[in-house]
Amino acid sequence: MMFKKVAIIGVGLMGGSLALAVKKKKLARHVIGCGRSRKNLKIALNRKLLDKATTDIAEAVENADLIILCTPVQTLKKQLHEVIHYAPDGALVMDVGSTKEAIVREADRIFPSRLSFVGAHPLCGTENSGAANAIADLYTGALCILTPGKASRGALPHARHFWKSIGMRVGKLDPLFHDRILAASSHLPQLVSYALMRAIVGPGGVTAGEITRFSGKGLGDMTRLALSPAEIWSDIAIENGKNIVPLLKKIAKDLNLLAERITKHQKVNLRQYFEASSRIKQRM
Amino acid sequence: MMFKKVAIIGVGLMGGSLALAVKKKKLARHVIGCGRSRKNLKIALNRKLLDKATTDIAEAVENADLIILCTPVQTLKKQLHEVIHYAPDGALVMDVGSTKEAIVREADRIFPSRLSFVGAHPLCGTENSGAANAIADLYTGALCILTPGKASRGALPHARHFWKSIGMRVGKLDPLFHDRILAASSHLPQLVSYALMRAIVGPGGVTAGEITRFSGKGLGDMTRLALSPAEIWSDIAIENGKNIVPLLKKIAKDLNLLAERITKHQKVNLRQYFEASSRIKQRM
Repeated sequence: MMFKKVAIIGVGLMGGSLALAVKKKKLARHVIGCGRSRKNLKIALNRKLLDKATTDIAEAVENADLIILCTPVQTLKKQLHEVIHYAPDGALVMDVGSTKEAIVREADRIFPSRLSFVGAHPLCGTENSGAANAIADLYTGALCILTPGKASRGALPHARHFWKSIGMRVGKLDPLFHDRILAASSHLPQLVSYALMRAIVGPGGVTAGEITRFSGKGLGDMTRLALSPAEIWSDIAIENGKNIVPLLKKIAKDLNLLAERITKHQKVNLRQYFEASSRIKQRM
Repeated sequence: MMFKKVAIIGVGLMGGSLALAVKKKKLARHVIGCGRSRKNLKIALNRKLLDKATTDIAEAVENADLIILCTPVQTLKKQLHEVIHYAPDGALVMDVGSTKEAIVREADRIFPSRLSFVGAHPLCGTENSGAANAIADLYTGALCILTPGKASRGALPHARHFWKSIGMRVGKLDPLFHDRILAASSHLPQLVSYALMRAIVGPGGVTAGEITRFSGKGLGDMTRLALSPAEIWSDIAIENGKNIVPLLKKIAKDLNLLAERITKHQKVNLRQYFEASSRIKQRM
């Protein structure tokens, strides 16, 4: 057993799947989950994702040697304050948040030397949410980006070992660089998917039924992310606004440019724009 | 045999796959393909998609009882003029273009009574192109939307029977309505995919390598369409500009609105926007 007690704060898709993976790989003697919703915790217990559930962070982190925050990023930044208050000496604290700069900065600012914090971002997930949708192999084979800071102290190898033990590949990035990359590779696509779904259905557009009947795989793929939980993404959007906003403005400008080129029948310009896009995709 | 000679004008992914399906289902005694590129035609012959290949439309349509135009939509609109000049009495002419209003209007205007035209839009395809990528079951199980006009005369049942024979489900739409729906369900998502790929990689963004390393399934799905052939899509964009441009402006406005809400930390408004999008997707 790698840990005596693992505390999972936030038992949604990410936290619930992580708890399940920890139990399945026998990495802890005891897994406790902490959440707001008693209904969701009950589902988690019934599905045997957890050994125990509580709505109280103090109870969850008591005697835990590993604490992982799996709540929306703005919530988890606040919860760090509670966690450091109740966590026992020597505990390793991690998170699975999709933004890293503000979280790591906060941990560096407030963590006492008796605890260590390693920011982590496992690049996995589905558009579903809640303990009901947790799956044991969600993390398997995916990349986990670690973003150590001052508060990581000597805990990075231990953190790396944990994520490898649940089957992940492990990489390392500076938290600032992480947020800049992920704004492009994940956060912008997510917001575009939400906006696309709204642009095509509704006033001035067509009905959901018409769209369903007369669309192919392309639209399904482009709007799959629109199912993702709004609460998680409003937090991410605000936490990483610095990097996301310029990209939103860039794509909005390009879409207006395309509208102009179409209106002016600038076929050659349009074709060149599309070709340049295809060349980038080919390099990926 | 349903037909003596089928002429496929444009032997790319769509035309090549259609030729292959016609041969596989034994719907014609003879399949001839017509294209600009001798190299591509050679590939088509080597892959046995065709019985014969030519670069000459007159030769292709001579004695053909079924002629199907599979070229980019602006090209095929022009080719209708050549086709009606050389096609034998009684021939059925169809197309597989992704826009229908202008094509059907042109056919209605120019077709002599000795020929019939039925506009068709098979909702299938991949992001690949050329005869090299043609596949026999591209059309199987997908929906083919027929958009008959005045020039269809009595040929609609015959057309329907053909597409059913190659394994498609067949629907019918008014050409104007078709273009309005497809602008939303297919054309806008395609243009957004091109623009997304360009927004995230390049000046102010990140490199293709970084993106590849640090992205998940979401980005791959959202940019898959960016591989689609530029020539086909510049034609579609201009042909259906009337319906596409308002949607482009609508989504651009929304993306700017999201940028503003993020900048102003309007978390509740953001969440409501995302939730409304999820609800639409759930109805699909």
